[in-house]
Amino acid sequence: MSDVFDHPWLGGLFADPEMAAFWSPDAQLAGMRAFEAAFSRALGRAGLTDKGEDAARAIEGMGFDMADLRAGTGQDGVVVPRLVRQMKAAAGDAAGAVHKGATSQDVIDSATAMAMRDTLALVDARLADLTVALEGLTARFGARPLMGRTRMQAATPITVADRIAPWLLPLADHRARIAEARPRVARLQLGGASGDRADLGDAAVGVAADMAAALGLENPPRAWHAMRDGVAEFAGILSLVTGTLGKMGQDVALMAQQGIEEIELSGGGTSSAMAHKQNPVLAELLVTLARFNAGQLALIHQAMIHEQERSGAAWALEWMVLPPMAQATGRALAAAIQLAGQVRRIGTPE
Amino acid sequence: MSDVFDHPWLGGLFADPEMAAFWSPDAQLAGMRAFEAAFSRALGRAGLTDKGEDAARAIEGMGFDMADLRAGTGQDGVVVPRLVRQMKAAAGDAAGAVHKGATSQDVIDSATAMAMRDTLALVDARLADLTVALEGLTARFGARPLMGRTRMQAATPITVADRIAPWLLPLADHRARIAEARPRVARLQLGGASGDRADLGDAAVGVAADMAAALGLENPPRAWHAMRDGVAEFAGILSLVTGTLGKMGQDVALMAQQGIEEIELSGGGTSSAMAHKQNPVLAELLVTLARFNAGQLALIHQAMIHEQERSGAAWALEWMVLPPMAQATGRALAAAIQLAGQVRRIGTPE
Amino acid sequence: MSDVFDHPWLGGLFADPEMAAFWSPDAQLAGMRAFEAAFSRALGRAGLTDKGEDAARAIEGMGFDMADLRAGTGQDGVVVPRLVRQMKAAAGDAAGAVHKGATSQDVIDSATAMAMRDTLALVDARLADLTVALEGLTARFGARPLMGRTRMQAATPITVADRIAPWLLPLADHRARIAEARPRVARLQLGGASGDRADLGDAAVGVAADMAAALGLENPPRAWHAMRDGVAEFAGILSLVTGTLGKMGQDVALMAQQGIEEIELSGGGTSSAMAHKQNPVLAELLVTLARFNAGQLALIHQAMIHEQERSGAAWALEWMVLPPMAQATGRALAAAIQLAGQVRRIGTPE
Amino acid sequence: MSDVFDHPWLGGLFADPEMAAFWSPDAQLAGMRAFEAAFSRALGRAGLTDKGEDAARAIEGMGFDMADLRAGTGQDGVVVPRLVRQMKAAAGDAAGAVHKGATSQDVIDSATAMAMRDTLALVDARLADLTVALEGLTARFGARPLMGRTRMQAATPITVADRIAPWLLPLADHRARIAEARPRVARLQLGGASGDRADLGDAAVGVAADMAAALGLENPPRAWHAMRDGVAEFAGILSLVTGTLGKMGQDVALMAQQGIEEIELSGGGTSSAMAHKQNPVLAELLVTLARFNAGQLALIHQAMIHEQERSGAAWALEWMVLPPMAQATGRALAAAIQLAGQVRRIGTPE
Repeated sequence: MSDVFDHPWLGGLFADPEMAAFWSPDAQLAGMRAFEAAFSRALGRAGLTDKGEDAARAIEGMGFDMADLRAGTGQDGVVVPRLVRQMKAAAGDAAGAVHKGATSQDVIDSATAMAMRDTLALVDARLADLTVALEGLTARFGARPLMGRTRMQAATPITVADRIAPWLLPLADHRARIAEARPRVARLQLGGASGDRADLGDAAVGVAADMAAALGLENPPRAWHAMRDGVAEFAGILSLVTGTLGKMGQDVALMAQQGIEEIELSGGGTSSAMAHKQNPVLAELLVTLARFNAGQLALIHQAMIHEQERSGAAWALEWMVLPPMAQATGRALAAAIQLAGQVRRIGTPE
Repeated sequence: MSDVFDHPWLGGLFADPEMAAFWSPDAQLAGMRAFEAAFSRALGRAGLTDKGEDAARAIEGMGFDMADLRAGTGQDGVVVPRLVRQMKAAAGDAAGAVHKGATSQDVIDSATAMAMRDTLALVDARLADLTVALEGLTARFGARPLMGRTRMQAATPITVADRIAPWLLPLADHRARIAEARPRVARLQLGGASGDRADLGDAAVGVAADMAAALGLENPPRAWHAMRDGVAEFAGILSLVTGTLGKMGQDVALMAQQGIEEIELSGGGTSSAMAHKQNPVLAELLVTLARFNAGQLALIHQAMIHEQERSGAAWALEWMVLPPMAQATGRALAAAIQLAGQVRRIGTPE
Repeated sequence: MSDVFDHPWLGGLFADPEMAAFWSPDAQLAGMRAFEAAFSRALGRAGLTDKGEDAARAIEGMGFDMADLRAGTGQDGVVVPRLVRQMKAAAGDAAGAVHKGATSQDVIDSATAMAMRDTLALVDARLADLTVALEGLTARFGARPLMGRTRMQAATPITVADRIAPWLLPLADHRARIAEARPRVARLQLGGASGDRADLGDAAVGVAADMAAALGLENPPRAWHAMRDGVAEFAGILSLVTGTLGKMGQDVALMAQQGIEEIELSGGGTSSAMAHKQNPVLAELLVTLARFNAGQLALIHQAMIHEQERSGAAWALEWMVLPPMAQATGRALAAAIQLAGQVRRIGTPE
Repeated sequence: MSDVFDHPWLGGLFADPEMAAFWSPDAQLAGMRAFEAAFSRALGRAGLTDKGEDAARAIEGMGFDMADLRAGTGQDGVVVPRLVRQMKAAAGDAAGAVHKGATSQDVIDSATAMAMRDTLALVDARLADLTVALEGLTARFGARPLMGRTRMQAATPITVADRIAPWLLPLADHRARIAEARPRVARLQLGGASGDRADLGDAAVGVAADMAAALGLENPPRAWHAMRDGVAEFAGILSLVTGTLGKMGQDVALMAQQGIEEIELSGGGTSSAMAHKQNPVLAELLVTLARFNAGQLALIHQAMIHEQERSGAAWALEWMVLPPMAQATGRALAAAIQLAGQVRRIGTPE
């Protein structure tokens, strides 16, 4: 568990339980379970099986053999073949109503879409909270003078409101971006083996609509197996958000320097060697998380080169990168809100 | 001139003259000239000077001492101080109406905004053209069978239309993204020394509106000197586009393999050693340009950490990266359109 | 635990327990414990305390309050202040011999240096194993003909040995790079509060030599708190290795295509939808891990911009990125060895 | 010409004519010309032709039709087929001694190897010069006190020598890395069509040795067409160097802040709006170039996934990225030397 978000002590700095919950194995499994149950039900409602409800209930109530899932993933490169085998076994004589006409990528990508949807909602809510916090700082301190600094040099006098504005104003644009992107991001994935829904025949349209409604996802006209631009747009929004917060963090760290002292924070980090230290830990964290996400975004864009009907190589890169990006973003927002709350004073002391 | 876009022979593969024109030094200079002329006129119309028109005409008609601009940039890190000095000299007794109340970043960023605006328009137009080309291929060959391939392995039969869909469908989403992003990207930059328009006083609002109209840019309520999310959103769209085209290129290269032969192209590249070769040059180029942009995007996001009122370090990173990204995108679109036109056949030969 | 290396089922594909052990919280804690115990002993041998051995034994035998470490990390941005406080409490009247003259970065970076050292040793050993495996394939199949392919097109006939050579030959160079880099990477970190060992006075040289020997690390003349090139060189080697393996994986995936069939593998991945599928899972994994590391390397290089005597922002970026890079590299080597073992045949069937 | 290194005014900040000369089209053409002439001579000396010297002289004396080279590159994706056709025409009845048994990648990669070799030599020389400059600063100011700063906060007093050490000490390690890497980087490329030197038969070994000596390159036993680790190692060294310089630049910019004033520089950049400004332009430039190279390095590592015997897609990515990386590194070194020369004082004013 060397991952910083889930680390016994580094988690104290990096963890965001609310966001982590959307990307946890539990959440992934719940998403895949929800997909398969909804699929079975939809097949039933489409008249392709009379055991859809039986299958769905079995799927919803079953436990999973995790060791078997792990072994299967090592063998197959994806968990779904083994997951479906377990589901069929649990469904008994309703096994024929399980997963028939779907494929691994439908299950995993739909679960990811639900996680992306929930992530965007949480990010949006925290953007709203951060907006309030920064507006509060502006109200409290905004009129105070500050020395504007350009190219790391004193420029002309500004106000605290001027310094805060670039932290605050982009947040509304990020919320707009989220609203615009959501229909392109939170989409049902349903394509079957090669993405053309061939096995569902005429029932495909109805099954897709049914499932999208059941899972709370958009219903695109086609599978997006090899069209990863929605995923990349999602990742882009995460990094736009952390980029804005990174600028805020960098400013706070610069403002907190002795000799500058344009900000006074409570709750600073201590040192093991220097008793006097009050380190702007959260400010620096915002810079770290911004630089982290900027680098990860490049990989999600590399993964857009997703060959033919499914690329194992490109797809797995998304699995590696999306959960850390989301957690970095969630933590950055929480840390920014926390940091805003630590401000005792901005602007030169009165 | 080792830059591939402007290279005596590599330009034969990489160059996109139409896009290059938006990012050329000539275009940059024209944009800066247009800013300063509009600014002088706006100052005049706001009653801040009675020499605004005189100054504007001098600016519009003057030549520049390029060696002096170059020396100034080496000294100051930006061209504008020296540019303005030359403009003031050209304006004679209207010198007081030149640049007064503006700052370097207003001039350069507004010129960049005009280049970003023109780039998005060209990208949008070529997306439309590529859409037509790919719809044409779908109409001609779409019904033909093809072996679907997942994880580089034969899967289930699909149609050519199924293979083309992930190249085609995202194009409409990219055009929607462009439309949504344009107001956030193509914005006037006007902030003065520390970004608060202090020197323009009450006239700031009118001057800004005036200039935005004159330059064909949006008129944001504040300067965006240290808010780089519009720039990063612009870069993200470029990389989303090249990502889609990179997938198309990768597919074509795979389809063109001997042993697969799902596509037949005209105009293939020859080899210096093997007379029989017909290399899918444009297909590979699309992959190159996609991977290039993915990496550059990370740097534009790193540059969002733009400290205080102006960061020389972060800002200059944008100057290094935006022109190549735009040219890579323009060339990728042109190459994709060209590649679509080279298709003699898709699908297994009849 | 959404981290793929430590994931209940994705770990079946990604996990490398041997490598994970070097970067686990247990290993990090053991490394920090070893540092502090060696430090206390060294202080004692240098005559700076007569309780050095007592302190070392207390440190070596104690348990830790993990919740307290976590809370401290959240507060301080690093675990060491709280860790040292617990150590001092455990040392009782030997508390004065604990950590006195060291700083957080000494403790954490030395533990990281030990992990980097152990990682390089494991990578080197697996490079040797992979060399044997690929030499074995060359011996078995090397003389068989294969169609050379350039630019994804049939070129001129080559042999299987020619195809394997670019997977094999760089391995010796990577082992040479490891040998050259090790003295620059596996270095004791000892600098005290601002990196100048001031608090150790004349005893600094002896204490450092003592500790380097005790911990199995090189003894550089100065602390490298703000000199991160050794870390970046380490990360570069990891990515050079996975780059070579990524090329091998990409080749295998291409060779395994129906219509090409230049390789026959056992143990291919199954599909949830297509019973006939034998997916080249490990080959694709090698590509994924290579592209992952290439992106992460950029962040370690960004972290070289480590301001002044210690940068919380840059340093934390290393904590986020080094463990995944090491685990990706370990897994890639293990997967390549495994993949070599899955080869039934290379070259066109006889 | 929007490339910053070759830009009419941005070149005043970014250009490095000495480095640019190694990567210019002229240098590339000279390198390719040198390869082909050496090859013809080597063929002659190996007894494969009796017109080797005639061909070599024709190649050495000819002019090139640049428009034809450009058209050929657009068609073929590489310049060499058209280049060779022109060479054969110039060689008249010695045409059969031109390029026979070589391939495009041999020509281009050998020219690149010569540029990499020359780049490493220049970087090494400038590292030596920078070492002298920084040792000079240490001699002049090293004993002066400075406030050590960790996590952007005042820590404990250090000396100026302590602050300079992390800028200076890594330079020796970079020079060692260059020496270690050179044999793996500056290598002759000679493989023929599919990389196995088949067309040269028994003469291959002698021809290779002959050419390596003629071109001043190492003579590896095999072609490295698809083994790109030497290129990636080269790029890694460039970014390690700029990373160290980026830390120096960031420190100088921080030290130059009003309120900190730990450094006084001459030659600071002026502002178009603020007469009092003395911007630390070169310091910021070092940060920009470091961050730029860090991002580019990721792309060179992505390009290590170079499929089969030659990847047009991966190879072209190197063409796009290597020249800017080299120029960024050259300029960073020159700027660091220049910046060191601008120091009037380091340490708190006496």
